[in-house]
Amino acid sequence: MAMSAKTKDKYQRILDAAVKVFAQNGFYNSKVAEIAKEAKVADGTIYLYFKNKDDILIKLFEEKMNVIIAKLQEKLEGVSDPLEKIRIYIHSHFEMTAAHPDLMEVITVELRQSTKFMKEYDNKQFNRYLRALSDMIRDGKDAGLIRQDINPGIQKRALFGIMDELSLYLVLAGENAKYTVESMSKEVADSFILGLTAPLS
Amino acid sequence: MAMSAKTKDKYQRILDAAVKVFAQNGFYNSKVAEIAKEAKVADGTIYLYFKNKDDILIKLFEEKMNVIIAKLQEKLEGVSDPLEKIRIYIHSHFEMTAAHPDLMEVITVELRQSTKFMKEYDNKQFNRYLRALSDMIRDGKDAGLIRQDINPGIQKRALFGIMDELSLYLVLAGENAKYTVESMSKEVADSFILGLTAPLS
Repeated sequence: MAMSAKTKDKYQRILDAAVKVFAQNGFYNSKVAEIAKEAKVADGTIYLYFKNKDDILIKLFEEKMNVIIAKLQEKLEGVSDPLEKIRIYIHSHFEMTAAHPDLMEVITVELRQSTKFMKEYDNKQFNRYLRALSDMIRDGKDAGLIRQDINPGIQKRALFGIMDELSLYLVLAGENAKYTVESMSKEVADSFILGLTAPLS
Repeated sequence: MAMSAKTKDKYQRILDAAVKVFAQNGFYNSKVAEIAKEAKVADGTIYLYFKNKDDILIKLFEEKMNVIIAKLQEKLEGVSDPLEKIRIYIHSHFEMTAAHPDLMEVITVELRQSTKFMKEYDNKQFNRYLRALSDMIRDGKDAGLIRQDINPGIQKRALFGIMDELSLYLVLAGENAKYTVESMSKEVADSFILGLTAPLS
């Protein structure tokens, strides 16, 4: 949708407020009025941009996944080795978690929340994010770097599961986290890539 | 708590009803009255056993995780090879998902639901389930089967993340699932174990 700069600013402010409120109270316990208050807009203003609370979560997810994917693509620019790309993907995900814990908490926890939500909502941006992974794995197979028995469809979900679980740990542990972005990225990338590339005995 | 057979039966019936209702409507959208109806008990009966809806979810989780751990231990009986144990662990988790999709949906989706819930509730049984994994990885290191650079604390969460994400896929895809318990177990066990055991170049 085409928006003026002022409108876009309000829209973004509401989304950022929603991230904060959802992360703090959980989606189900949050009220649209709280989001309005956090965004410093009138309650009615929210309904100019969003149908309801569900719609805020969906738009938030699409908008923010777009940003995550754009940042990832920036980092992948000029990199052609599929294994190096997987390594960058992993690091980028954990880095995003450390930089935006509220956002990642909402993505990790709140979006899994309602099964209904996941069953009915065709999550296009999330699928794009996953597909970037299976493409890298497929490219690695084509280049003879990854074993032919590897299933990219299972492995993209496996790696997302690893990152998602460890991101959840980082977010919930906060300052008590025992692992850093760097140590987790290295451990996960080393073992995941070896699992795809080492010969099966 | 010590219970008579009749009491225990009612308690179990309420928990099983809760699994069904939570899986169908989600935790937040479920009402205690619906659980009572599904369990064929009076609303008031539920409050003889449980403080509130939160308490039902906590007890459900503890009770069911106990069952999952007991089944796993049965399968591990007589097995001493740590790598074979990891393989059995993975298969057991996916098998449980296929056999009890409602339960695994509740465990996978509904328990992640409320951050508040996860932050405040010390999830002992879940930690036991995770610890079984890091113990296997530690045993594998001690036996010289798993590389010394491997971090059991990160890897137990990584493997749980893999299984959790793929279980969620199985549950949500239902009859449309592209992978079977057997194909997923083999793919995950092969690559995860190789990632821990193959030499780092």
